[in-house]
Amino acid sequence: MTHGGDVYTVSKLLGKNFKHIVDLSSSVNPLPLPAEIKEKLIESLDFIDRYPDTETRLFRETFSQVYSIPVENIICGNGSTELIYLVVQALSPKKALILEPTFTEYERACRLHKVHVEKVFSLDKDELIVLVEKALSKNSYDMIFICNPNNPTGWLFEKDKILSLIKRAKDTVFIIDEAFIDFAEEETLIYHAKDLENVIVLRSLTKFYGLAGLRFGYGVSQKKLIEKLKNFSQPWNVNTLAQVAGTEIIKHKEFKRKSLEFFKKEKEFLEKSFYRKGIDYFPSVANFYLLKLPDGGFAKYILEKGILVRDCSNFCGLDDRFIRISVKTRLENERILRELENWLDIKKQEVKIEENNNSSSWKSQKICQ
Amino acid sequence: MTHGGDVYTVSKLLGKNFKHIVDLSSSVNPLPLPAEIKEKLIESLDFIDRYPDTETRLFRETFSQVYSIPVENIICGNGSTELIYLVVQALSPKKALILEPTFTEYERACRLHKVHVEKVFSLDKDELIVLVEKALSKNSYDMIFICNPNNPTGWLFEKDKILSLIKRAKDTVFIIDEAFIDFAEEETLIYHAKDLENVIVLRSLTKFYGLAGLRFGYGVSQKKLIEKLKNFSQPWNVNTLAQVAGTEIIKHKEFKRKSLEFFKKEKEFLEKSFYRKGIDYFPSVANFYLLKLPDGGFAKYILEKGILVRDCSNFCGLDDRFIRISVKTRLENERILRELENWLDIKKQEVKIEENNNSSSWKSQKICQ
Repeated sequence: MTHGGDVYTVSKLLGKNFKHIVDLSSSVNPLPLPAEIKEKLIESLDFIDRYPDTETRLFRETFSQVYSIPVENIICGNGSTELIYLVVQALSPKKALILEPTFTEYERACRLHKVHVEKVFSLDKDELIVLVEKALSKNSYDMIFICNPNNPTGWLFEKDKILSLIKRAKDTVFIIDEAFIDFAEEETLIYHAKDLENVIVLRSLTKFYGLAGLRFGYGVSQKKLIEKLKNFSQPWNVNTLAQVAGTEIIKHKEFKRKSLEFFKKEKEFLEKSFYRKGIDYFPSVANFYLLKLPDGGFAKYILEKGILVRDCSNFCGLDDRFIRISVKTRLENERILRELENWLDIKKQEVKIEENNNSSSWKSQKICQ
Repeated sequence: MTHGGDVYTVSKLLGKNFKHIVDLSSSVNPLPLPAEIKEKLIESLDFIDRYPDTETRLFRETFSQVYSIPVENIICGNGSTELIYLVVQALSPKKALILEPTFTEYERACRLHKVHVEKVFSLDKDELIVLVEKALSKNSYDMIFICNPNNPTGWLFEKDKILSLIKRAKDTVFIIDEAFIDFAEEETLIYHAKDLENVIVLRSLTKFYGLAGLRFGYGVSQKKLIEKLKNFSQPWNVNTLAQVAGTEIIKHKEFKRKSLEFFKKEKEFLEKSFYRKGIDYFPSVANFYLLKLPDGGFAKYILEKGILVRDCSNFCGLDDRFIRISVKTRLENERILRELENWLDIKKQEVKIEENNNSSSWKSQKICQ
């Protein structure tokens, strides 16, 4: 499982229907789709014999009205993942910089298109920015990927910090992945991206708007860059239902308000509980937390109970002590906290036994580091 | 409009809701989706917050049972169009051969990936095969695209003819686009493709199964080639609803039987009418006809009445005298026949007037050629 949300592999493994897997590995909003949007989707099932609008006009017009971004500055994709591959293909950079740890598809897209990839890594976001500045002063890059807020750490770079990098490296195209920006919309770069020559902002309706199964992503950039991307994009890439759902949900203020309120409350609950239980977590603006546990193996342990969390060992620089859990309903949040507590207790017992056997084992050092 | 089915551009042009456009330009089955499949789609709307299965397991397992093709020989895509681009990207041919006139996306995919394209053209399918044989004897190609049955001509190459080419050019990968093969399933090459080293068969649920709006295509090939393609494919490319609909419809024998019966009847009606009205048509095994009219302009003429037919002038070697119409319901088929008759009458009148004015004008020669 190279990504979160793979309930199908788990359901095969456990012999359980995927609907009964508790999935805390994918950072998707658990609130139900508004009933009136579901109605619209049902209505549009009568028209699935028609090709989707290859220009995604209705969505772009609606987004344009809500966010005051001209339609010609918007491009849509089959999830923002398709757009990640598209920017690499269309702009064919020779050398790219990736800020790690981050979403793994940037690197995969670069490798597939034979882009030379350099990385800077830190678990401290201020240090990471310093490393980027250093890299930029020594080298020139054709493309830089910045996930903001960042997956899996949940941190947010302030707009001004990124803008100062953008102004400094004018020959570098900045791909700003704002898949989780709805949690910090004031820091979006879409209003700059529409004018600047070297910025493409990618966004997603998958996470905050809960449309993971339908696939919908979009990008905002300068008209010239959008046209370059369009030259490489495939016809009919966004299916009709995604277009209908996307168009409706992007203007649905009540869903947004409710979601933000829901997440605020649940995040407060989770953070307090982490603190109380001594669970090491990365402060996050988004609807997920990167946890650093004292030992590896939690993801595997919990999987057997039908609960899926994101084992972060395939993120650059992380190992299986790191897990990512997403904010779900109170019931599910309480469940994962209980399971974490139990597992930490078991681990403490193990350490005690080991300490009795070997008072300075490597393993106990690792747990205490 | 570079493809059929663009009711959205037309609806903008005419200021009409797209649902009221009579679309004979896209070759999609007009029979409604079976009610029980629609029910399943409505149920699955409750799970669109889950990511789609990135391995499309349920579809592949079902297809495997129905068609006796092992699951590891199947790959799925966001429409077969995505797979056209994927084969070109993953196999990166240097030189490709295209049999024209045909679906325009093969050439576009090649151009985007900087593949040198050569073409053979004929409006006679036997002559076309001879041209391919000649080309193969003089040159070597890394890839050949054969659309079978062919869009827009509707002709079918017998399996054995293609197989003899395949055996002859062992270093050439044959991309056989079987988007319309349900009309002549005995000529499919999927059973050969799963074993041969140089064949990829692409198929679609868009046309015969009426799922254009949901997007679903798949490919059948040797395991090694499928794995090569998978190395380049994007995660979550087939949305959940397409997977549900595809899995259900591929095993729905009654829908298939009914559709074949419906098309047989309507095609007989159309062919008789073409003959009676002196309309020049290409014999077609599929659910569309390429017509050669005595003059250009019909597509534009009929568009103003809210009817969309495929102006074929952007197909290689064709001009705007060629149109493609798809087989729809009897009411729509009667309508297009009436409109064709009216327009031909108008054209005859024009010729008479012109002949009176200038007895050997270029235009009248063109009409009579």
